[in-house]
Amino acid sequence: MLNFYYFPGACSLASHIALEESGVTFEAHRVNLPKQEQLSNQFLALNPKGRVPVLATPEGILTENLAILLYIAMLKPEKELAPLHDAYQLANMQAFNAYLSSTVHVAHAHGPRGIRWADEVSSLADMKKKVPTTMAAGFQLIEDEYLQGPWVLGNRYSVADGYLFTLTRWLEADGVDPARFPKVEAHSNAMLDRHAVQRVLAREQLKQA
Amino acid sequence: MLNFYYFPGACSLASHIALEESGVTFEAHRVNLPKQEQLSNQFLALNPKGRVPVLATPEGILTENLAILLYIAMLKPEKELAPLHDAYQLANMQAFNAYLSSTVHVAHAHGPRGIRWADEVSSLADMKKKVPTTMAAGFQLIEDEYLQGPWVLGNRYSVADGYLFTLTRWLEADGVDPARFPKVEAHSNAMLDRHAVQRVLAREQLKQA
Repeated sequence: MLNFYYFPGACSLASHIALEESGVTFEAHRVNLPKQEQLSNQFLALNPKGRVPVLATPEGILTENLAILLYIAMLKPEKELAPLHDAYQLANMQAFNAYLSSTVHVAHAHGPRGIRWADEVSSLADMKKKVPTTMAAGFQLIEDEYLQGPWVLGNRYSVADGYLFTLTRWLEADGVDPARFPKVEAHSNAMLDRHAVQRVLAREQLKQA
Repeated sequence: MLNFYYFPGACSLASHIALEESGVTFEAHRVNLPKQEQLSNQFLALNPKGRVPVLATPEGILTENLAILLYIAMLKPEKELAPLHDAYQLANMQAFNAYLSSTVHVAHAHGPRGIRWADEVSSLADMKKKVPTTMAAGFQLIEDEYLQGPWVLGNRYSVADGYLFTLTRWLEADGVDPARFPKVEAHSNAMLDRHAVQRVLAREQLKQA
């Protein structure tokens, strides 16, 4: 049995979608980030990083979306959620996911969580001001270079798609018009047509558009 | 034939070590970051991100250490550089590498490259001031929770070890005394005993201690 820990609309949505697509049995637990439940002793015993997503497996804890996504794809290979037997294609998928986690998510985080990297009020405001620029730059590169279309890896749907969809949903709040990226926008619309995505959005009580 | 692009001592050292450990044939190309060669048209045609590492394979370009590391491990499975057939262990290794790339490397980058996320001189100084704190926090978690010892994954050497070694080498310049983390320090010393590591340090013209 898998136990999954998430917060609605946070980056954990990527792993949540992959779990649902895989058909594996799992229990989803909402972590109350606004009440800082992720910093409670109970949660820190589970994940010392104090972050979501967390996937508790029979073999141990997993954190980090791109690791959880790989695990889910390997757990249910018959679902073909990743090009598991092609070293280049699998690594290329991981490169895409790594760009989302270490560049795009990090760019976004300088809005709400600049305190991770600086202390002065003026620095936090300065960081926040730059978020639309850095998020737009990240998505421009995705639009121009990495999103093959209709899915991230071309005709083959993969766990990378739920990850891109998750970060795309942050664009408007980050001050970027998603319409600037037609391929990305078409990708999000295609994701909204998937039943697994609809079920996860309903479970996280998020809007379906 | 593989072509590998690096800068001495940069995070590309992680992939460089993995290539050398794998025994694969590759050509190493030094990219002149101080002269901004990574932003030349020629390099941007190779990697639009304008960053190292890059691995040019017969099938296409790979970027991002954790993707290149996975590729190398899959290319030479007989070298057992990753637990390729154990979904949990492989994902756990990727989780470790993801922590290095999206938390530890990002913390470090706020020293030399804060301009990615803010514009004001005061913000950049504020970010720089916080680097010792964030780097120490990252390594404390590695010391206490993730480095099993002697290698990252316990008795089994993997591509994650070269990545940890690479970022550990940044600690002193980031204002953190490596002696605070005895397991990490023992890990670095064990890495320095490996012939492949010694060959790569010599090729990058880096000191061997």
